[in-house]
Amino acid sequence: MRTPVPEYLQGVLDECYGGDVGQVADYIPELAAADPDRLAVALATLDGPVHAAGDVALRFTIQSVSKPFVYALALRDRGLEAVVERVGVEPSGDAFNEVSLEPGTGRPRNPMINVGAIVTHSLVGDPGLGEDERVAAVVDGLSAFAGRPLEVDEAVYVSELDTAHRNLALAHMVRSHGVVQADPVELVRGYTRQCAVLVDVRDLAVMAATLANGGVNPVTGVSVVPAWVARQVLSVMATCGMYDAAGDWFTSIGIPAKSGVSGAIIGALPGEVGIGVLSPRLDHFGNSVRGVRICERLSRDMGLHLMASPASGANVIRYFDADGDSIELALQGGLHYATAEHVLNVMSRVEPDDRPLTLDLSRVTVVNDVADRMLREGIRRLGLDGHDVTLVAPEHLARRQL
Amino acid sequence: MRTPVPEYLQGVLDECYGGDVGQVADYIPELAAADPDRLAVALATLDGPVHAAGDVALRFTIQSVSKPFVYALALRDRGLEAVVERVGVEPSGDAFNEVSLEPGTGRPRNPMINVGAIVTHSLVGDPGLGEDERVAAVVDGLSAFAGRPLEVDEAVYVSELDTAHRNLALAHMVRSHGVVQADPVELVRGYTRQCAVLVDVRDLAVMAATLANGGVNPVTGVSVVPAWVARQVLSVMATCGMYDAAGDWFTSIGIPAKSGVSGAIIGALPGEVGIGVLSPRLDHFGNSVRGVRICERLSRDMGLHLMASPASGANVIRYFDADGDSIELALQGGLHYATAEHVLNVMSRVEPDDRPLTLDLSRVTVVNDVADRMLREGIRRLGLDGHDVTLVAPEHLARRQL
Amino acid sequence: MRTPVPEYLQGVLDECYGGDVGQVADYIPELAAADPDRLAVALATLDGPVHAAGDVALRFTIQSVSKPFVYALALRDRGLEAVVERVGVEPSGDAFNEVSLEPGTGRPRNPMINVGAIVTHSLVGDPGLGEDERVAAVVDGLSAFAGRPLEVDEAVYVSELDTAHRNLALAHMVRSHGVVQADPVELVRGYTRQCAVLVDVRDLAVMAATLANGGVNPVTGVSVVPAWVARQVLSVMATCGMYDAAGDWFTSIGIPAKSGVSGAIIGALPGEVGIGVLSPRLDHFGNSVRGVRICERLSRDMGLHLMASPASGANVIRYFDADGDSIELALQGGLHYATAEHVLNVMSRVEPDDRPLTLDLSRVTVVNDVADRMLREGIRRLGLDGHDVTLVAPEHLARRQL
Amino acid sequence: MRTPVPEYLQGVLDECYGGDVGQVADYIPELAAADPDRLAVALATLDGPVHAAGDVALRFTIQSVSKPFVYALALRDRGLEAVVERVGVEPSGDAFNEVSLEPGTGRPRNPMINVGAIVTHSLVGDPGLGEDERVAAVVDGLSAFAGRPLEVDEAVYVSELDTAHRNLALAHMVRSHGVVQADPVELVRGYTRQCAVLVDVRDLAVMAATLANGGVNPVTGVSVVPAWVARQVLSVMATCGMYDAAGDWFTSIGIPAKSGVSGAIIGALPGEVGIGVLSPRLDHFGNSVRGVRICERLSRDMGLHLMASPASGANVIRYFDADGDSIELALQGGLHYATAEHVLNVMSRVEPDDRPLTLDLSRVTVVNDVADRMLREGIRRLGLDGHDVTLVAPEHLARRQL
Repeated sequence: MRTPVPEYLQGVLDECYGGDVGQVADYIPELAAADPDRLAVALATLDGPVHAAGDVALRFTIQSVSKPFVYALALRDRGLEAVVERVGVEPSGDAFNEVSLEPGTGRPRNPMINVGAIVTHSLVGDPGLGEDERVAAVVDGLSAFAGRPLEVDEAVYVSELDTAHRNLALAHMVRSHGVVQADPVELVRGYTRQCAVLVDVRDLAVMAATLANGGVNPVTGVSVVPAWVARQVLSVMATCGMYDAAGDWFTSIGIPAKSGVSGAIIGALPGEVGIGVLSPRLDHFGNSVRGVRICERLSRDMGLHLMASPASGANVIRYFDADGDSIELALQGGLHYATAEHVLNVMSRVEPDDRPLTLDLSRVTVVNDVADRMLREGIRRLGLDGHDVTLVAPEHLARRQL
Repeated sequence: MRTPVPEYLQGVLDECYGGDVGQVADYIPELAAADPDRLAVALATLDGPVHAAGDVALRFTIQSVSKPFVYALALRDRGLEAVVERVGVEPSGDAFNEVSLEPGTGRPRNPMINVGAIVTHSLVGDPGLGEDERVAAVVDGLSAFAGRPLEVDEAVYVSELDTAHRNLALAHMVRSHGVVQADPVELVRGYTRQCAVLVDVRDLAVMAATLANGGVNPVTGVSVVPAWVARQVLSVMATCGMYDAAGDWFTSIGIPAKSGVSGAIIGALPGEVGIGVLSPRLDHFGNSVRGVRICERLSRDMGLHLMASPASGANVIRYFDADGDSIELALQGGLHYATAEHVLNVMSRVEPDDRPLTLDLSRVTVVNDVADRMLREGIRRLGLDGHDVTLVAPEHLARRQL
Repeated sequence: MRTPVPEYLQGVLDECYGGDVGQVADYIPELAAADPDRLAVALATLDGPVHAAGDVALRFTIQSVSKPFVYALALRDRGLEAVVERVGVEPSGDAFNEVSLEPGTGRPRNPMINVGAIVTHSLVGDPGLGEDERVAAVVDGLSAFAGRPLEVDEAVYVSELDTAHRNLALAHMVRSHGVVQADPVELVRGYTRQCAVLVDVRDLAVMAATLANGGVNPVTGVSVVPAWVARQVLSVMATCGMYDAAGDWFTSIGIPAKSGVSGAIIGALPGEVGIGVLSPRLDHFGNSVRGVRICERLSRDMGLHLMASPASGANVIRYFDADGDSIELALQGGLHYATAEHVLNVMSRVEPDDRPLTLDLSRVTVVNDVADRMLREGIRRLGLDGHDVTLVAPEHLARRQL
Repeated sequence: MRTPVPEYLQGVLDECYGGDVGQVADYIPELAAADPDRLAVALATLDGPVHAAGDVALRFTIQSVSKPFVYALALRDRGLEAVVERVGVEPSGDAFNEVSLEPGTGRPRNPMINVGAIVTHSLVGDPGLGEDERVAAVVDGLSAFAGRPLEVDEAVYVSELDTAHRNLALAHMVRSHGVVQADPVELVRGYTRQCAVLVDVRDLAVMAATLANGGVNPVTGVSVVPAWVARQVLSVMATCGMYDAAGDWFTSIGIPAKSGVSGAIIGALPGEVGIGVLSPRLDHFGNSVRGVRICERLSRDMGLHLMASPASGANVIRYFDADGDSIELALQGGLHYATAEHVLNVMSRVEPDDRPLTLDLSRVTVVNDVADRMLREGIRRLGLDGHDVTLVAPEHLARRQL
């Protein structure tokens, strides 16, 4: 059997191709030369192959889509406190004031706007790194997210540097506030290189899936950043990733995302999937027109909205019988807070007496920390009530828990 | 056995009681008279009893915590388009400019700030409703969220109305932009009544759980608002619920939330839980000091952060054997996009031939729409490849799907 | 001989009539009904008849042109400190944020924007005045500026009140900040009446000339406000009078001015002239298109720019002879700081000896305070040096000074 | 006789010395090393010697006080249109947003804030000038204003350049908007040199007096800039010169002014006087504490407020007799619009007949253009009415006019 996902993706591309609305970014020749009608999409789940459709071989510069990943590297290398001290996590709410520094501190409002991304770049690797070493650390980190060695497009880099006055302005501005100590010119060179890293949509999907997977690259199995870092990055993408249309994106699509000027968008739904899209035509916010349309379609088709209530966990109780001489309680599916709470409610209906109780976990798939602790406490209390509890657990659970 | 959750909650209260930082709101005598050290918390999961600890009998006015629920009622009564046309969904990003209207349209930036909430109030019920009828519709709606009839504290209402100049200013402002057609004075009276509805922490937990449960009150079973409304409201709470500290809250706690001036906070994690907290001491953002601390603690202890990657769905494949004369594939746990995709990947390893194939779903707990469609397509393709597919499904699945 | 000034003014009207650019204000029927091509201008110097041309008999509501005059009345009635405490003197610099309150205090930025004018209205007369009494005090004050009894157009008042939501918003806003104590609704009614006072261009010219004349109405001779008040009002008109185009107006035209929505503009050049213009077509700043053109023309033709350096006072020394047995020093023209300084410089060239000195002031026209003191000191020192000083002064000087 | 002005100035210094409020600017060692209690003042009228008191020999860097003068040079060299296209004339109204660019165009709001001054620096001299040539043109221009060759303090220049990140940010920002074409780094070097020009208070007084004198240096007699340039510069100083306290300064002191970070303030009252003050202690706006106090005192003592109504010109009519066989009209003092208008009013009372008329201007001191034209027209009309007009004019008037 051939999996139907690639055909589904091709169908999405066909339906979202639409008119020729939007403009290719044209501030440097290399971007202006992009074919406006190239179109590609890729999907990476957390434990399978990467599916893709369209111009999957096309490489393009990563631009602002690098921001969440480099933010992740900075958090990993310097820790939460040191990073948050220098770059905030609040949406800027104001498209026209691209400077967006906090009054007083001069701290950029978030790492998804240029001024915040420049500061973030300075926080990758050891504070003592030179310009080239820092760029190498950034490219290495992005490569680990993608699961293959990435490279800088030097022509794009040189061309962007020629028109980097706004970024130089931002770098000098944060330097004047003491937010960074590095030389602003070096910083902008390094950041411009970061933006010129070449990727394709498969790379983007895998990179996004790494964030969705708690920092572990689902293809290579490498833990690129710790789980708390992935969580922090996804949170900031959710509120600040899509420029000033963040609220609109979040309500309608509901996937933490980041877009870039070459027409790329990534989306990452925790525990589910990473998405990469490319279509160079941009709307006036600077987001890819067809890219947004594709993400809307995927979110709706695939039930990916973060706020969609997953189906209830009511079926966690596979079997419960307390009427005879012994008591049997069999569970199924995943155990997290809500389902474990339900199990405790059932246990609390057990009268204290000396009947033996069997707790059958053989059909339980996963148990998170809080559920583990809750079940342990329930078992302990049943014991105190007089029951002799027998646990039937599959090997994967018995090994580490309960 | 007694469930350990109430004891756990009491422990959280004890540990979060802490010093006496923060001030009780004092702009009206009724709020100023609140005992600053009252403290209560309640938890409602989506299918069980409500647990609570502390001053659970204490009633207080709902104030701004009413905003997300009345937004839900407006969405239900007027539809997404009509509401979004009049109230935006973007974080305001600017604490000092409490007017926060979009330049040009005069549309309030979001329904969680006062000016947006006043407009939202005007959108509950039929456009032709009079002032008292609209208030009745609002109170009825809030009561449905709480699962019991709620009432307005008339003394608080009268007192607040005396100092309602800022809200009157906001109401006249949106009226002058044509965003509302109603009489601004009537609107402010109605909105002030809405804020003076009396609740306790159990009510708040149930109300929040209703949003987390796709709009269905988990206690009464009543569908208060449709699932898309709950999703929209939770999305806006995530980005705009905690005043200008929204980004900070969302990264560190990761639960869609709303706070109010009487010291209440609600949190709602889709598919999981509703939380209600009360502690009247406020920080300079107007958020309850101890309330925030309690929410942080619950989020950390209970693994409730929205961006925490749930444990992988890898175990969806309970059993797969394609080596003999027949092929067996047994699944377990919940099926949504990511796990269904994994199943399709396994199916795609099956060679086309005429061996019969048994697909055992007897240990599958839930299946969402996209997973349903994906499995159907996989089964169809296996059939085209020559396999005779036998489905073993539990009754709850067989009834509606596959 | 007939004075050529009216013909000159008619010529200016003819040349500035131009195309039909600009729109009549249309937010109430009474303003929308104005004939867009009515045109009138009046000039009042500080000691002569008022000249006018065009539709001089046309009466229209004064609208925002009332603001500087009511500000003057408030300053007169409450004193500088009490007024400045409640209304600032800084240009708002931001056309779109019409609220324009100072962060923190809630004080309106200046009295020329609506919110400031509403507060200013509340400061006319005794704090204990009722609504009607305050309106009467305002109308009386405006009448004193115009030199004839003015009246409110009740139809315009009623019509404007119907759409006064923005002003009600502003009034409630400042009330919520405690900047005013009065009832916001009464305040807006009173302010709306103030704006509906009927005037013609002659009235405007005389009102402006009263400010230019140190507060003394040049036609009636009545001192309406003290000189310091006129100075304060003219200063604020200079920086805040022409909405957000204040700097452009001040550099190019250089006359303290105020415009209104009925198409009126006043200009007042201290010590020189008052100007009144009417043409209902407005540009997008809300300033009269032809009115601005006429003021530009008058400023250029008549050398009225405040920053134009007046011709040097070098000729103050009519005659100086220190070569003989006696010394003669004859002055001419006006004596203020710069010319008096020049006189002292000449006196300082006189050698100490016993020759008599005659100081002839018979051709001196005016002497201000500082020049008076400087000359006294010069005369005293010449006496100390041994000279016997004889003063020849015209009666108008001898009477009060030297 | 010795002129009392220096003693007066010394008295002002003594009285304004006061406490030790305010801080010396300390962002570079050279400024931090300034003695906070140095104090000096100088006054230059338009036709006499320069008076000074205090630390008159002290030299300090001109800093922001250079801005109006370099703005004048740019206007002279490029014309009004080219300069206004790149730098606005509106007060910024917002102290915290030091970027202060117009949305859309990126044009700095005015030439008195740093970003505007940097653009202004680029507009001095021929567009083709190199960095050093432009600096030379700026220093030459400032020297012409001061009437002596000025020099750059190279140590201050080097030190400021080390911390010029904010100015570099601003320069790159306007470059990114295309407002300037020059290299931002060269521009900031040039601008920093401009700020490091050494002056004393006498220099400042003469420079200010040159603006007050229509662009002609009153000491050297050199016309540094045309009269329209001086008028434009004074207008912008009036509304934008004293940072965000512009309105407060203008209402209370009423002298176009500019302050700088070394503690200097200049004031220039058109047609009257130039003032230079130095006192290094700064308030939180960055204005010299004692400097402001001294300017307040001078304004009050010397009647220098721009909006103070000069005494009326009523005395322009020295003599008028139309009762006999011939008519005599004798004028005195200065003739400008208001006084000429008065003369025309008197002329209009003359009945048409054939009596000869003598117009005696021998005591008229000055006549401006509009008054000249008005008198000519009056004389022409008297002739048409049948009068034979004889003019008695002093040589200085007869030469060029009437």
